[in-house]
Amino acid sequence: MHSKPEKNGPHTATELLSPLDSFSRRHLGTNPSNLASLLQPLGLNSLDTLIDATVPPAIRLPGAMALPNAIGEHAALSELKALAARNTLLKSFIGQGYHGCITPPVILRNILENPGWYTAYTPYQAEIAQGRLEALANFQTMILDLTGMDIATASMLDEATAAAEAVGMALAASRLPEQRTVLLDQHCHPQTIAVVTTRATALGLQVLVADAHTFAPNQGIFAILLQVPDTLGSVRDFQSLARCAHEAGALVIVAADPLALTLIQPPGTWGADIAVGSTQRFGVPLGFGGPHAAYLATRDAYKRTMPGRLVGLSHDSQGRPAYRLALQTREQHIRRDKATSNICTAQVLLAVIASMYAVYHGPEGLKAIARRVHSLARILARALETLGHKLHSADFFDTLTVYLSPTERNEWLARALEAGMNLRALPEGVGIALDETATIADLAALWSVAGGQGTPDFDAFAVEVLADQPRLETRSTPFLTHPVFHKHHTETEMLRYMRSLEAKDISLVHSMIPLGSCTMKLNATSEMLPVTWPEFAALHPFCPPDQAAGYAEMMRQLECWLSEITGFSAVSLEPNAGSQGEYAGLLVIREYHLARKEAHRNVCLIPTSAHGTNPASAVMAGMRVVTVSCDTHGNIDLGDLRAKVDLHSASLAALMVTYPSTHGVFEEGIREICELIHAHGGQVYMDGANMNAQVGLCRPGDFGADVCHLNLHKTFCIPHGGGGPGVGPIGVAAHLAPFLPERLRAGAAERSGAVSAAPQGSASILVIPWMYLRMMGPDGLAGATRLAILNANYIAKRLEAFFPILFKGTSGWVAHECILDLRGFKATTAEDVAKRLMDYGFHAPTLSWPVAGTLMVEPTESESKPELDRFCDAMIAIHGEMTAVETGEADPANNVLKNAPHPATVVCADSWDRPYSREQAAFPAKWLREAKFWPPVGRIDNVWGDRNLFCACAPVGEDN
Amino acid sequence: MHSKPEKNGPHTATELLSPLDSFSRRHLGTNPSNLASLLQPLGLNSLDTLIDATVPPAIRLPGAMALPNAIGEHAALSELKALAARNTLLKSFIGQGYHGCITPPVILRNILENPGWYTAYTPYQAEIAQGRLEALANFQTMILDLTGMDIATASMLDEATAAAEAVGMALAASRLPEQRTVLLDQHCHPQTIAVVTTRATALGLQVLVADAHTFAPNQGIFAILLQVPDTLGSVRDFQSLARCAHEAGALVIVAADPLALTLIQPPGTWGADIAVGSTQRFGVPLGFGGPHAAYLATRDAYKRTMPGRLVGLSHDSQGRPAYRLALQTREQHIRRDKATSNICTAQVLLAVIASMYAVYHGPEGLKAIARRVHSLARILARALETLGHKLHSADFFDTLTVYLSPTERNEWLARALEAGMNLRALPEGVGIALDETATIADLAALWSVAGGQGTPDFDAFAVEVLADQPRLETRSTPFLTHPVFHKHHTETEMLRYMRSLEAKDISLVHSMIPLGSCTMKLNATSEMLPVTWPEFAALHPFCPPDQAAGYAEMMRQLECWLSEITGFSAVSLEPNAGSQGEYAGLLVIREYHLARKEAHRNVCLIPTSAHGTNPASAVMAGMRVVTVSCDTHGNIDLGDLRAKVDLHSASLAALMVTYPSTHGVFEEGIREICELIHAHGGQVYMDGANMNAQVGLCRPGDFGADVCHLNLHKTFCIPHGGGGPGVGPIGVAAHLAPFLPERLRAGAAERSGAVSAAPQGSASILVIPWMYLRMMGPDGLAGATRLAILNANYIAKRLEAFFPILFKGTSGWVAHECILDLRGFKATTAEDVAKRLMDYGFHAPTLSWPVAGTLMVEPTESESKPELDRFCDAMIAIHGEMTAVETGEADPANNVLKNAPHPATVVCADSWDRPYSREQAAFPAKWLREAKFWPPVGRIDNVWGDRNLFCACAPVGEDN
Repeated sequence: MHSKPEKNGPHTATELLSPLDSFSRRHLGTNPSNLASLLQPLGLNSLDTLIDATVPPAIRLPGAMALPNAIGEHAALSELKALAARNTLLKSFIGQGYHGCITPPVILRNILENPGWYTAYTPYQAEIAQGRLEALANFQTMILDLTGMDIATASMLDEATAAAEAVGMALAASRLPEQRTVLLDQHCHPQTIAVVTTRATALGLQVLVADAHTFAPNQGIFAILLQVPDTLGSVRDFQSLARCAHEAGALVIVAADPLALTLIQPPGTWGADIAVGSTQRFGVPLGFGGPHAAYLATRDAYKRTMPGRLVGLSHDSQGRPAYRLALQTREQHIRRDKATSNICTAQVLLAVIASMYAVYHGPEGLKAIARRVHSLARILARALETLGHKLHSADFFDTLTVYLSPTERNEWLARALEAGMNLRALPEGVGIALDETATIADLAALWSVAGGQGTPDFDAFAVEVLADQPRLETRSTPFLTHPVFHKHHTETEMLRYMRSLEAKDISLVHSMIPLGSCTMKLNATSEMLPVTWPEFAALHPFCPPDQAAGYAEMMRQLECWLSEITGFSAVSLEPNAGSQGEYAGLLVIREYHLARKEAHRNVCLIPTSAHGTNPASAVMAGMRVVTVSCDTHGNIDLGDLRAKVDLHSASLAALMVTYPSTHGVFEEGIREICELIHAHGGQVYMDGANMNAQVGLCRPGDFGADVCHLNLHKTFCIPHGGGGPGVGPIGVAAHLAPFLPERLRAGAAERSGAVSAAPQGSASILVIPWMYLRMMGPDGLAGATRLAILNANYIAKRLEAFFPILFKGTSGWVAHECILDLRGFKATTAEDVAKRLMDYGFHAPTLSWPVAGTLMVEPTESESKPELDRFCDAMIAIHGEMTAVETGEADPANNVLKNAPHPATVVCADSWDRPYSREQAAFPAKWLREAKFWPPVGRIDNVWGDRNLFCACAPVGEDN
Repeated sequence: MHSKPEKNGPHTATELLSPLDSFSRRHLGTNPSNLASLLQPLGLNSLDTLIDATVPPAIRLPGAMALPNAIGEHAALSELKALAARNTLLKSFIGQGYHGCITPPVILRNILENPGWYTAYTPYQAEIAQGRLEALANFQTMILDLTGMDIATASMLDEATAAAEAVGMALAASRLPEQRTVLLDQHCHPQTIAVVTTRATALGLQVLVADAHTFAPNQGIFAILLQVPDTLGSVRDFQSLARCAHEAGALVIVAADPLALTLIQPPGTWGADIAVGSTQRFGVPLGFGGPHAAYLATRDAYKRTMPGRLVGLSHDSQGRPAYRLALQTREQHIRRDKATSNICTAQVLLAVIASMYAVYHGPEGLKAIARRVHSLARILARALETLGHKLHSADFFDTLTVYLSPTERNEWLARALEAGMNLRALPEGVGIALDETATIADLAALWSVAGGQGTPDFDAFAVEVLADQPRLETRSTPFLTHPVFHKHHTETEMLRYMRSLEAKDISLVHSMIPLGSCTMKLNATSEMLPVTWPEFAALHPFCPPDQAAGYAEMMRQLECWLSEITGFSAVSLEPNAGSQGEYAGLLVIREYHLARKEAHRNVCLIPTSAHGTNPASAVMAGMRVVTVSCDTHGNIDLGDLRAKVDLHSASLAALMVTYPSTHGVFEEGIREICELIHAHGGQVYMDGANMNAQVGLCRPGDFGADVCHLNLHKTFCIPHGGGGPGVGPIGVAAHLAPFLPERLRAGAAERSGAVSAAPQGSASILVIPWMYLRMMGPDGLAGATRLAILNANYIAKRLEAFFPILFKGTSGWVAHECILDLRGFKATTAEDVAKRLMDYGFHAPTLSWPVAGTLMVEPTESESKPELDRFCDAMIAIHGEMTAVETGEADPANNVLKNAPHPATVVCADSWDRPYSREQAAFPAKWLREAKFWPPVGRIDNVWGDRNLFCACAPVGEDN
C-alpha cells in the first residue's frame, strides 16, 4: 500500500456535483495528497519549496495558465465526440497520394490499438526491441522487393519529405559542383513539389518544375524526380529518360505507389537510383493526412548517405541472429552540422502496420488487391468512354483523369458530393482514384455522376476487361518471397505472429522507461481511443474543408492552448516530427530576416550540449553553425556566448537553446541570454524537448524565446509508437506569425513553406494532446510539471550516494531529469549498465548523452513511488555488481554486467561455467520472481553487423 | 511456407467485382486449395471422400443451407453498423438492476477488447491461468467485503439466476421437508421474481410474492428473498424480519446492489444467509441486458452447497501460493443427477472487469462514486419535493419512485423522451435511477420533466444536502482492505497490473487450445469490434422497444439463420449460457407435455456418456433421470435404450443426446433413435455442444431432434472469456415453438418461463455470431465443418501410432475430435501429460472426459497445419518421455512429467538435482527457443487447497 486512502468524499457543492472520473489523479504517479513520501527524503515540507528553488524566480509564471478547466474523462470524450461529429465522412476518391484502404481488423486491434506496441520507445536497445525490429526488417524487405532496389530505410515521415531527403542524397552524390538544379516532373503530386521546393530553396538550390521529358544535359541538373503512377494517374515509361539522366550525371528519383508496384515494372529495373513513396494504402488509416509511413530505398552505392533509420541483421553473444539499428554513425545526432538530414525519427508504428498488411496478404493477396482496383478502374474507364468522356491517359493503374470544362467539372463535383463522394478537382477536369474500398456500387454512383442513366451492365464491362490483355502488368520479378510473407495469412496465425513479436519488446506496459529528454509518460487510453474513431481516422487530407469542420475546430483549440502554454501568439501544427519542427522554426526565422532585407543573417549559434538535430536542422535551413561552449555546470558559457555574439553580430541569425538545458538544469541566465541575442538582431530558437519541466511554471514566450517547437510525443502524451510517429508543432512570437506555413487550404497546390506532405501534418494524432490538455486543465498540467521535477529529484537523492549527479542548479536541485555519472567506474561501461538493466526488467535511461559515460534519467510525473523505488533498487544493486568488478571481487571480463543481458536459453543451458550463479544472472531482484521479462537475445554485436551489412529479413534456417 | 501461393486473380466478372477481404480464408487454418497437405497423410484424394465416409448418408443435408451469401469483413461491419444505427441511444435512468456506468477506458481496452483476456479458456489448468484466477480472487474478496459474508463464488450468470440458485441452496439446507414455499418480497426486481418463479415452479415449489414483512412462521416458508435497495429504490430495515425467519427455520436471501453496499450495512451483519446481486454497474457496459457478472455469497456453513465456480488459494510444488478452482467435486459435471444446480459456467470476463473496477477505484473511490450518486438523488428528491411531488420513500440510495397519476406519468415519460432520457414506467408513477454517468445537466433536464420552470439553484440544494447528516451511511465495517485495492489507482499502475496478470495465462494468442467438446476456434476481431460499439453496448435492457429496433432486427436475422442451420422452426436467444439452454429446452418439453395433459411424462433418458450438465438440467426441470448405457464404440447401446424406452414408455418425457456423441463419433443410428423416442411419446433433446461437426452437413431438426441448444461460445465464435460469457440459445421444432420463452416485451414484469434476467439474454455478444454467419455464408460454414473434421482426423492419424484413438466411426474416421487413450501407460497420468504440455507451450486437451485416462483433442477448423503439427510433435515428444518412464529409463517419481510444469524460477535455480537436464525441462522442443511461455508456478496442490479452504486474495508477504 503506497498511498493513504483518498480524502473522504466531497466537501463543497461544486465537488459534490462534479464527475469523479477526473483524469489528473490517474495520470500522476503520486496523488497530491501523498507527496510527503517523496518530499520527506529530500528534507522538504512542501513541493512549493522545491519548485521555488528549482525554477528561477525571474521567469516564473505568476498565475495559472488561461486554459479551460479540466473535465472528466467521460465528459472529455463526449466533447471530442461532438467535435468529431462535425466532420463529414464521405467516400474520397481524390487520390493524390492518399487512398482509402482496409486496415485488417486483427492489425487494427492488436497493433494500432495496443499499448504493447504503441508505448514502446525507439529500438536503440535492440535486445529488448526484437519484435519491432523484425517488423521493420519485414518493412524494409517489402520495400526492397517492391521497388527492386538494394536497400531501404525503416520508414520516412511522408512521401514528400522522403522525396526531399532523396534530393539531398542526390546532391551529396553529385560529382559536379555546378549541378545545382533539381528537375521535378510537373505531374508529381503537388504536395511533393511544395515540400521539395521548400527544402531545396533553403539550401540554395534551383527547382525546375517541368515535363521531365524536357530534360537535357548541361542544364545543371543533378536529380530528376518522377512519379509513378503520376498525379494524373498515368503510368509513363521513363526508361530512356533515366538513361539520359545518368549519362548527364544526374540521379533519378522515383516516387512510386507500392500497390501499383505489385503489377508494374519496379523502378529499380529501369534506372531509378532512389525510390520513395507512401505506404499509407497498406492498411494505414487516412487520418486527414497522417501519420503514415513513407519509404526510401536506394542502390547499394548510396547506402551510406541514406537518411533515417535502418534495421540490420547481426548476431548476439550466442551467435544467434538478431536485429538492431545499423550504421548508426550516419545519424544526425552524431554527424551534427555535417549531417545532410535532420531526420532521426521514423514512423515505426505505421511502418509496422504497413508491413503487417503485407505479411497478412502476402504477394498474391497484394496482387489480387491491385488487380481488382485496376480492373475496377478499367471498367470505369470503359463506362466513361461509353458516355463519350475523354480520359487523360489509357495507361492508368487506379486513377483516371477526365477532361472536363470548368462548368462540367463543377457539376460532376456537385453530383459526386450528393452521392456521398469526393473527387479530385483539377484544372483539366476531375481525378477519380479508386482504391481497395471501392465497390461496384461506387462505380454505379460514378456512372450517374458522369451523366449516365440507369444502371449500366458492369458485368458486361467486366467481361470485356477480363478478355483484354492487361498491358499494365509488366512486372516479371517476384517479390515478398521470404516465408514471413507466406505463413501468416489466417487471422489466428497473424494474431499469434504479432503477439509473439510484441512479447519480445519492453514497453511502458512492463515498467518505467526513464529516458532523459524523451519524456516517456503515460499514454492514456482516453487519449488514444479517438485516434481510431472513423470520424477522425477516415478523412482524406484534401477533402473539401467544410467536411473537416470538426478537425478545424479541434486544431484551432489545440493551437490556442499550446499558444497559452508556451506564451506565444501563434502555433503551426504542420511539422510531423520534432526534427521537422526545428527545421520549420528555423525557416520562420530565415523568412523573417529575409523579409527585413537581412538575408545576410545566417549564423546560428548552438551550444555544444545541444541535441544533434539542432545543428543538422540549421544547416538544412541554410544557416552556418557556430558552436558555443558550456561551463562545468552544464550551462552555456556566457563569456563564450558574448564573444561569439560580438564576433558574428552582423550576421547573427539565431541562437538555438534547449530549456531546461540538455543537462537537466534551469539555467538562471536564460532571460539575459535571450536579451543578448535580440540586442544583436538575432532570434532565439528554443528546443522544446524539455518542455515537460516548464508547462505551467514558465513560458518560453515570456522569457525571450521567439520560436519554440514542441514534441507532442514527449510532453503532450502522443506515444512513441516504438520509434514514431512524433509531432513537432512550432509556436512563434507575434512578429514571426506571418511567416508560419499556412495550415488548411482548399487547394494545396500552391502552399508556400510547406514542410510536411499533408497541410495538417499528422492530424489524426492531434486528438491525443487535445484530450490530455482537456482532461488535465491548467492545475493538472502545472501539477504534472511539479511532480516531474519532484520525481527527478527523488531519484537523484536516492542514487547520489552511489552515482554522482553530474549537473545541478545553483540551489542544488535538478530539473525534471538527472544525469548519473558512471565515469568513476573503469571496468564497466554505461552500455554494460544499460544491458544489465534489461535483466532487471528495465529499459535503460538515455545512454552517454549529453555526456559520454553517463545515464540521463527522466522519470516523468506518471511513475509511482514504488516504481521509482524499484528502478533505484535496480540501480543500487547494479552499483554493487559494478563495485565487485572494480574491487577485483568479480572477473573484469566475465561478469554479470559484461555478459548482460541474459536470455532464458543461456540461463537454462545445461552447461554453466560463469563465475556467478544462474540466479544472480536472471533473478538479481526479488520482484523478478513474480514477473520476469526475458530478453529474447543476448548482447548484440553491432560492429559485426555494420561490417556485414544485411538489411532485410533474416534468411530462414539460420536461427534454428 | 506451409501453403502454395493463392490462385492468380479473379477469373469471372463476379469474382473480379467482389471485395477481397473475404473472411472464410482468414477463419480457416488451411485454405481450401491447400488441403492436399492434410489429405495425403490420410491416404485421401478429396475431402468429399472423408466427409461422405464420416457423416452418415442418411442424415446428410442434400444441398447448401439457405443463408445469405458471405460478404467481406468491411461490408459486414458496414451492414451491422447500419443496424446499430437503428438503435437509439438515450440516457437511461430506468434502473431495475441495470445502471449506466463508466468502464474505465484502460480496462475497456486492455481487458474487454484484448484477445489476451477474452480468448482464454476456463481456468481448469490453473498453472497457466494464474492471471485470471487472481482477478477472480479479487472479485470474490470484493464481494465478501461488500456483503459481509464468508465466502463468494467467482461469479454467476445474472442476478435473477443467482437468486434462483440461492433458493435452491436454501431448499437443500432446509431441515423441514414440509417447507416447500419461497417468499419473494413484492418489491424485488420483476425479472428476479420471474426467473425464480420459473425455476421454483419446475421443482414443484410454491412461490409466494408478497410484502416480506407479512412473513409468519408455519407458512411452510424455507426461504425469503429480499432486495436492498428494493426495486422502488427504498432501503428498508429487514433485521427483525431476518431474526423471525431464522427462528422459523427459513433462510434469508438478500439481493443487494454492490454500490449501495459501500454505504449501507452489509447484509452479512443483519442476518442474510445468502447474498446475491449484479456487479454490472462496476464498469460493465449495459449491453441491452448482458453479459454481466452476478455474485453469490454465503455463510461458511453453506459453502459446500454453493453452485458454480470458486477460486481458492493453495500452493505449488515449490510451496509458493497459487490459485486454482476449489471444491471442484461440487460441480454438476461430477455430481450429475445429484446436482442441485446445472451452472458450471461463470461470467469470468465480466467478473474480471468488475473486479478491476474495484481495484482501480479502491474503497474510497467506490464510496465517492456511491456518495455522489446518492447526493445527486438527494438533490433531485429535494427538487421534486419543491415542485410538490410525492416520493415513495425517503430512504433511497439512488432510485426515486415518484407517485403520479397514469396521465401525469405518461406526460413525464414523454417529456423525458424528448429530453433524451428514459425513466421507468411504474403503475405507481415513474422510477428515476441515477447512476455514475449522471450529471448536473441531467438533474436540470429532470427538473423540467417534473414540470419545473427555468433552472433551479442546484448549488443551494447541494448545500442543504451537504448540511444534512446522511442517514443512509450506516456502514461501519471497512472493505477492500487488501493492498491490491490500494496499489493500482493510477492508469500506469493499473495497465501494468492487468498486463502482468495477462502474461501469466495461456490463451489463443499463444497456441492452439485443443479442448474436446469446447471448440476453441478463432474469435475474429471483426466479430468482436461491434461488441463495444456504443449503439450496442450502452442500451438498457428495458428501454422502449422502438429504441432497440436495430437489436431487434439483428436478433431476428440471427434467429432465422440459426433456425436454418439447425433445421428448426423457431429459436430463442434468451438463455445466457449453455446450461441455461439445456434447462430452457427441457422446460419447453415439459410445457409441451403439460399442454397435452401429459404431466406424468417426467422420465428423461440420458446416456452415460452425456455431459454432466444434462442430468443436472433434467433434475432442475423436474424430470427423473434414467441412464442408458453405451457400447464399446462409445455409441448408445440400442438394446439398453429399447429396454428403457419400453420400461418407461408411459412416462417417457425426453431423451437427451449429444451429436456427434461425446466420444467424437457420428452415430449411424441417430435417426432410428429419434424415431424410437417419438414412437413412445417422448421428445428428443439434442445437446448442441458438438454442433461444430454438423453445421452445413446435417441438421438436428432434419433427423429427428425436437429441441437443441447451441453453444454460441463454441460453434459460433463467442470467445470463452476465460470462463464465460457463454450464450445457449435453443432451437425447437414447430410443435414446440409455442412454448418458447417470449423474447422482447415492453413490460417485463409478467414474463412467463423466463430463464434469464434480461429478456434478450446476453444481447450484446450476439453480434459475434451475427458477424460470423454473415461473413462465412453457407459455403464458408460448411467448409469450416469439413475442415474441422479433417483436422481432427489428421491429428488422429499422426498420433495413433503413439496413442490409440479410443473411438472411431464405422468407416474408421472420427468426427471433429478424437480421444487419445493414455491408459496403456502405468507410471504417467493424463494429468501429468496435461501439465507437461504446459512446458511445451500448450494448453492441455480435455482431460479424462468422457473417459478417465484419456485426452480428447478438438483442433477446430481455425488451426493451421503447422500448428497441428507442432501440437502433434509435442505429444510425440511427450510419448517418448512417457516411454522412458515405462521402461525404467527415467525415474518413476522424479521425471519431467511428474515434475511438470517447470517455472523459470525452478529451471534457473542455482541448485539442480533432477535426474534430467534443465534444457530437457524447459526447452524440450526447438520452437521453444524462439518463443517460450513460462508457466508462472509449478504443479499446484489441489488437495491441500481444498483441505485448507481460503477463497480470497492471498495474504500479503506470503509469497515474497
